[in-house]
Amino acid sequence: MTKEKVAAWFDANRASVLKDYFELLRFPTIGADPAHLADCRGCADWIVNFLAKLGFTAEVVTGNPALPPVVLAERPADAEGRAVLVYGHYDVQPVDPIDLWETPPFEPTERDGRVYARGAQDDKGQWFGLLQGLRAAIESGEPLPTVRVVLEGQEESGSGVLSDLAFDLRRRLAADVLLVADTSKAANGRPAIVAGLRGVIHFTVTLRGPKYDLHSGQHGGMAPNPAQGMAELLASLHDANGAIAVKGFCDDITEPTEVEFALATESGFDENAYRDEVGVLPVGGERGVPAIVRNAFRPTLEINGIHTGYGGLGSKTIIPAEALAKLSCRLVPNQSPAHVMECLEKHISDHCPRGMTVEISEVSGCEPGFRLPVDSPVTRIAREILDGFDGRGTAFVWEGASIPIVAKLRQITGAAPLLVGFGMQEDRIHCPNESFSLERFRELILWGGQIFGALA
Amino acid sequence: MTKEKVAAWFDANRASVLKDYFELLRFPTIGADPAHLADCRGCADWIVNFLAKLGFTAEVVTGNPALPPVVLAERPADAEGRAVLVYGHYDVQPVDPIDLWETPPFEPTERDGRVYARGAQDDKGQWFGLLQGLRAAIESGEPLPTVRVVLEGQEESGSGVLSDLAFDLRRRLAADVLLVADTSKAANGRPAIVAGLRGVIHFTVTLRGPKYDLHSGQHGGMAPNPAQGMAELLASLHDANGAIAVKGFCDDITEPTEVEFALATESGFDENAYRDEVGVLPVGGERGVPAIVRNAFRPTLEINGIHTGYGGLGSKTIIPAEALAKLSCRLVPNQSPAHVMECLEKHISDHCPRGMTVEISEVSGCEPGFRLPVDSPVTRIAREILDGFDGRGTAFVWEGASIPIVAKLRQITGAAPLLVGFGMQEDRIHCPNESFSLERFRELILWGGQIFGALA
Repeated sequence: MTKEKVAAWFDANRASVLKDYFELLRFPTIGADPAHLADCRGCADWIVNFLAKLGFTAEVVTGNPALPPVVLAERPADAEGRAVLVYGHYDVQPVDPIDLWETPPFEPTERDGRVYARGAQDDKGQWFGLLQGLRAAIESGEPLPTVRVVLEGQEESGSGVLSDLAFDLRRRLAADVLLVADTSKAANGRPAIVAGLRGVIHFTVTLRGPKYDLHSGQHGGMAPNPAQGMAELLASLHDANGAIAVKGFCDDITEPTEVEFALATESGFDENAYRDEVGVLPVGGERGVPAIVRNAFRPTLEINGIHTGYGGLGSKTIIPAEALAKLSCRLVPNQSPAHVMECLEKHISDHCPRGMTVEISEVSGCEPGFRLPVDSPVTRIAREILDGFDGRGTAFVWEGASIPIVAKLRQITGAAPLLVGFGMQEDRIHCPNESFSLERFRELILWGGQIFGALA
Repeated sequence: MTKEKVAAWFDANRASVLKDYFELLRFPTIGADPAHLADCRGCADWIVNFLAKLGFTAEVVTGNPALPPVVLAERPADAEGRAVLVYGHYDVQPVDPIDLWETPPFEPTERDGRVYARGAQDDKGQWFGLLQGLRAAIESGEPLPTVRVVLEGQEESGSGVLSDLAFDLRRRLAADVLLVADTSKAANGRPAIVAGLRGVIHFTVTLRGPKYDLHSGQHGGMAPNPAQGMAELLASLHDANGAIAVKGFCDDITEPTEVEFALATESGFDENAYRDEVGVLPVGGERGVPAIVRNAFRPTLEINGIHTGYGGLGSKTIIPAEALAKLSCRLVPNQSPAHVMECLEKHISDHCPRGMTVEISEVSGCEPGFRLPVDSPVTRIAREILDGFDGRGTAFVWEGASIPIVAKLRQITGAAPLLVGFGMQEDRIHCPNESFSLERFRELILWGGQIFGALA
């Protein structure tokens, strides 16, 4: 199916496509929050119904009744041939700080050619666009491969349910190509094939001191202070040069090949454009290593939040009873998540401040990073289509982000991952006022309209 | 008036005294929170009415209409002689975390001989008990000195209004003795005269990085992380030995005299009893210095709170846009608050992490610490009364806490401070479930019933 035919199909079906897109965005599918379990189930049912209308045999698979279910679907090929597994997630990030949203996160709103809603891009907008492209191909009578779809509700919180189910479901997930639309275009807007993803681990650190908050005058200088202890513990994770200081954390990292390094850096990195977009120069991480290399080929250990003691107006002079920190790591190939977590546990335990106790909890993610070949048959097919989107051709990117389950699905199904997404920094995913350009959404449809037939 | 007569008076008037005490505690007088301004005004009016019934000329003085007012009152002496100024505060600490309160903080509840409410001890319970003692003396026809009363609504947030008004009100505050009931008994329960208080400064530090929260995968290793930056900035405030590392902070500190050191340490310090009460050994502060010396004679720099990024269930993988920390210092004699603040500003500015901006705001308190002579005429009068409360006699303590305005009132009025209070660690002031023993409340009445006449 040509790009022009897909474009004409979208022009003719725009209203119904957007109606369904907005319906999907209205489900507040915060998969990490048990209060939204029913919303996740409702969304999964909605997706099953949507896929059934496209000729899929679709069902909701509930691995753990206390957690968001998985949607699993199959549409047999018109002829024997390749099978394609589409992976995506219908869960979204939490919405706080809610007061920074200009319109409610689950009331999708169109402004200036963009749709504002939590999940408008990450990831509902991307896989839904891709499947609308598939719909265009189906309705045009295009010969198609077997298409399997797996959509989970826990990507943002570690993919636990699908990860547990994947081995048992391996026959129903089997495919030649694992097609994922959950990534970004290159920073300069070129279409991009993702040739690597970092792995991820999340965890929570709790430091406990006094039995209750103490008066900081009566006890200051005597009782050990968990807020101070947490600051010291967290500061110990990096050295003065910004490098990770946890012993063993960076053991055995695979360096990029010359080809990978050249492709990753060919467009350069515009530090001023970065500052204009996000408000800071890219001066985080280890000094002396180029920003794009730090992001593509090096691990990180980030503090995602710290909460302890008073934070309101004026002052409250206490020594808080405890301190909580949320952390996450991004891993690169050849780092073992289990080994990294062991190193972290040892470091944190060794650096537990005097008089306090430390606990590590909510460990999740724990998937390794990986890189993909840049010149495989599947890559060549994808590149040919994507070169038609932009005169500058297709870029290869090694994303700093993670899709923890992709490594696992690749391993279990043997499928070759093909990661092509149309996100842009301006979408502000994970942040207040997440949005997605309708132009990018249209590109997903154009991509979906062509890639399935090409893979058949 | 003898102790026995005061005790008999309380037995006869117990119901009406407690009724008034509970009424006073029902005002949610969180002076730091503008939302409670009307509650503070209502409480001030209630106090004026209460004092008028004791023969005081009392009024509400509004220094700044946006802040809690001051109550000022005078009851002329029966004869010429000394004047006593009673100082206290009707404002209380914030109540969060509210869900840890077993009964609502502003619904005083009696359980097992204790009154549970925010302010039950600090400070409503203390000055109200003292003034009930004065009432006993008045109703018994005891010859009394001129009694002036000043009760402010901002002690917990820096005493700004009274501090600004004090000089203009100096004739109405003039006194020979400044009587304060806002301190504690000795840790072992002996009655105590406070011979020193630490000064205090509070301030807020805000560290700003990206314009908005960033995806920690996409930006990890590139964007500087304010949560990490705040941890490093706060960790830099102390050295590895637990001593304050801010250059100039500890300049010129006055060491205790031999007599002060001997009195402060005569009872020893029971580290295990401390751990049983608060849940931690007294291992905070500088190593190698005894706990009681650290608390009585050394300054502190405490982190009262840190808030940045995500803190909910599961994970949210962001690089937060900013980080906030609440800090306070306790100062000892000869430390100039202005000099200390300058040193802090320089340190924090010098240690601002790369790529971020730092702001210091909400600087308040800024009162120096002081020590009092342990063998003055006023001290001897007080000691004679207090020795009657406990066979072990009266202790002298140098409190780690602060009553910022006492130093200022002492300077402006020339009055000799006499600080005697009946707080105990078990009262958990500034914490959830603050309470006050009715036995200690009774001791305040016994003390108040005797001290005014003795000072006349």
